[in-house]
Amino acid sequence: MVSDKFFAIVAGVGPGTGRSVALRFSESYPVVLLARRPESYNDIVTQINSAGGRAIGITTDATDEASITSAFETIKKEFGKLQLIAAIYNVRPDSRPSLKPFLELNLQDLDTSLNGNVRGLFNFAQSVLPPLLKSVDSSPRAPTLIVTGATASIRGSKLWSVIAAGKSAGRVLTQSLAREFGPAGVHVAHAIIDGVIDVPDAEHAARNDATPDGKIAPYAIAESYWNLHTQHKSAFTHEIDLRPFNEHF
Amino acid sequence: MVSDKFFAIVAGVGPGTGRSVALRFSESYPVVLLARRPESYNDIVTQINSAGGRAIGITTDATDEASITSAFETIKKEFGKLQLIAAIYNVRPDSRPSLKPFLELNLQDLDTSLNGNVRGLFNFAQSVLPPLLKSVDSSPRAPTLIVTGATASIRGSKLWSVIAAGKSAGRVLTQSLAREFGPAGVHVAHAIIDGVIDVPDAEHAARNDATPDGKIAPYAIAESYWNLHTQHKSAFTHEIDLRPFNEHF
Amino acid sequence: MVSDKFFAIVAGVGPGTGRSVALRFSESYPVVLLARRPESYNDIVTQINSAGGRAIGITTDATDEASITSAFETIKKEFGKLQLIAAIYNVRPDSRPSLKPFLELNLQDLDTSLNGNVRGLFNFAQSVLPPLLKSVDSSPRAPTLIVTGATASIRGSKLWSVIAAGKSAGRVLTQSLAREFGPAGVHVAHAIIDGVIDVPDAEHAARNDATPDGKIAPYAIAESYWNLHTQHKSAFTHEIDLRPFNEHF
Amino acid sequence: MVSDKFFAIVAGVGPGTGRSVALRFSESYPVVLLARRPESYNDIVTQINSAGGRAIGITTDATDEASITSAFETIKKEFGKLQLIAAIYNVRPDSRPSLKPFLELNLQDLDTSLNGNVRGLFNFAQSVLPPLLKSVDSSPRAPTLIVTGATASIRGSKLWSVIAAGKSAGRVLTQSLAREFGPAGVHVAHAIIDGVIDVPDAEHAARNDATPDGKIAPYAIAESYWNLHTQHKSAFTHEIDLRPFNEHF
Repeated sequence: MVSDKFFAIVAGVGPGTGRSVALRFSESYPVVLLARRPESYNDIVTQINSAGGRAIGITTDATDEASITSAFETIKKEFGKLQLIAAIYNVRPDSRPSLKPFLELNLQDLDTSLNGNVRGLFNFAQSVLPPLLKSVDSSPRAPTLIVTGATASIRGSKLWSVIAAGKSAGRVLTQSLAREFGPAGVHVAHAIIDGVIDVPDAEHAARNDATPDGKIAPYAIAESYWNLHTQHKSAFTHEIDLRPFNEHF
Repeated sequence: MVSDKFFAIVAGVGPGTGRSVALRFSESYPVVLLARRPESYNDIVTQINSAGGRAIGITTDATDEASITSAFETIKKEFGKLQLIAAIYNVRPDSRPSLKPFLELNLQDLDTSLNGNVRGLFNFAQSVLPPLLKSVDSSPRAPTLIVTGATASIRGSKLWSVIAAGKSAGRVLTQSLAREFGPAGVHVAHAIIDGVIDVPDAEHAARNDATPDGKIAPYAIAESYWNLHTQHKSAFTHEIDLRPFNEHF
Repeated sequence: MVSDKFFAIVAGVGPGTGRSVALRFSESYPVVLLARRPESYNDIVTQINSAGGRAIGITTDATDEASITSAFETIKKEFGKLQLIAAIYNVRPDSRPSLKPFLELNLQDLDTSLNGNVRGLFNFAQSVLPPLLKSVDSSPRAPTLIVTGATASIRGSKLWSVIAAGKSAGRVLTQSLAREFGPAGVHVAHAIIDGVIDVPDAEHAARNDATPDGKIAPYAIAESYWNLHTQHKSAFTHEIDLRPFNEHF
Repeated sequence: MVSDKFFAIVAGVGPGTGRSVALRFSESYPVVLLARRPESYNDIVTQINSAGGRAIGITTDATDEASITSAFETIKKEFGKLQLIAAIYNVRPDSRPSLKPFLELNLQDLDTSLNGNVRGLFNFAQSVLPPLLKSVDSSPRAPTLIVTGATASIRGSKLWSVIAAGKSAGRVLTQSLAREFGPAGVHVAHAIIDGVIDVPDAEHAARNDATPDGKIAPYAIAESYWNLHTQHKSAFTHEIDLRPFNEHF
């Protein structure tokens, strides 16, 4: 049964990680799904509500302050009596167009990475941290902010220049937030996803299936996020890596 | 109900992490407890067996090849029909005597650290990896080797010279094993425990209690180890950090 | 005697590191000094030219593509017959205003950090890498791009959120450039300055003076940058840290 | 002209790095060369003395406390009026025999790595740090301890388990020494050599030759060590990486 006191919010819902995280957290909490396009969240909102959960989707561009502000006004109207207990930032700008030699890139490629990986996270964190702080005393679990990163968060590989710039900035921003808000009782964590995510995750039920080709099952990421959220406050993990068993690292 | 097919082994059982890890894994598996002195595991073996689980303790010095070999012969006799599914290396040589200025240390202080943190781990890993590999195909969960580390595993702080030498060696050895045995289906993980562990953990039941003084609850470490063990093979975590919400890092 | 074939360029010239780096490199090369305000480079340009060196200053905002483009047109006019052999990016946005609790920051604080630490570096690197590549075959020394970083480049400390975001992005961008352009013969290096820089460095001559209070002498940074520039191509250093002997780290 | 007040010591002299470091430092100081076999240092001692420098070789096994003690007694006799200003630990146990699957290794392979990379360094550091501390006040340059590391110092690659264990322990031990002895005025640095070293370096004179095949020129390492030694005390570098321009990293 889902909570009637707390809700969760997932920014960046597509066919992969965001969708599975929303499903996983919807087992315990009403969830708000943010995505730039309704088609990114419509099906999953329907699926959660049909299954007895509670979900709403809000078309939001996290990189736009006004859009984020408007989203949180909608949330207040819809979920006004609930408290925020978990917020996941999973916005990931498409990195493929900028995966090329540095001298073929332009400033717009850099800005795409910085907007999605850093500025959007900044806006989101500014919006969710005050309500997460308010939930500290009334929640048996530590209110949690989880940010999805990638290998590029810790490594500037050849050709990944602007993607790695954005990802590493998002990681270190998250680290600073962990140091500031951890002592206040909010668990801030960062996940380094190292590998290809297996999308679409049409079934989600197949939790114990092997993944012979070594792609990361999105529900496995979701399970680890849930485990981060439910950690005891005396043993917070700030950073995990997640990769297929056969991934080279 | 505990498994009648698989068992787990915990090396380094004392009043803190090792004990809680043994308890946690005993909920699902028969467990073998290794410690240098019987008084380190006697009570917990009794507790597990009384509660309907199955446990044996073996007096073992992991830093001594012959002692480790003898322990695994005993295991074969006692648990011969079971397969190894999880092995936790939690041996931690007492670091307090060597926490002093470098020029006041002697080679014995270094050897104490290297023996417990590296040589013992080497012996243990050599003993558990072959049976873990054998369990890959028959187990729904990935066979798992978890090694307990500390902040000194990644940082050579002032006065921590020989402790950090041993801890960092143990960490990097574990990392190499993850890269070698992950593709074969064995999950090798390392945990950086950053903070003071709250021992004795007399109750273990108090899972949701706050820890006002910021010491790490051993059962919280055990829970995170269990979560590592049950990760899907498409999303292994190699390294986690664990620290109290209010720990400076 | 300064080279009549190669020149160097320093972006971000103020009373500290940039000034000393310009002076050090002016011993061997004509130098171009870029700063947002003429008063930042006027004195040092005069000093270099009076001492028998050759220097020009160009008022430039590296974060503005058009301003950078215009600067390089001026350089072409003034130094057209010379080839670029060393480029140092030392632009450092003032971090003090944003050194505060995360919820007191606004998006403008983040942008100030991203503009100076990442977007300006991106523009600068796009402008200097093509001429540096052209110098590979004709130069006895490897053409060099050095980027000035800080402790925040590798650590998101409490209250340093947006500064660390920008610095870490600049570092990882630089790392990616090293991996792309090293094999082409361009030495790309990053320096982590860990400590307070002793400015003004009025004398510059006092190379062997002790620094009793533990502030970093800018000329010592300049000397290390020069040593990076003159490394043999079989032994490039990509990253150095620089801190006073008594700095806590 | 070599100093008549200070001397340097290099432990681990063979045909590569140790030899070039000894040559480089012999331009300024009398040097003591330590190696397990006289044939490792005889030629280079002769070469230095013939060229007007001053060198002695002492057959020493750094991993043996008694052997190190005996070496320093010989040094006292020979160089008793000189003060120690630089000590380089370049002992590198042969790693090739242990570069194999973990389950094919035995404890002796681990001990070979720990002995050379950690215990020898421990003994050496205990012997050189007291005289280096004594030189702090009387030397214009900071007394220096430099330790040679490798990529395995920061990464446990597949098959490199025991080598990486020893190397990482040596690195973190060095880091702890830097934090303890830096504030006392001794510069402790660690070098990560990432690549194949070009030995024999028969000429040593060919400082500006290109290295078309991408092997590290030992004299280039020596030059960087010299630059570390001569850093101003307000700007110590604790760690550098050194790799050929075309090395993948």
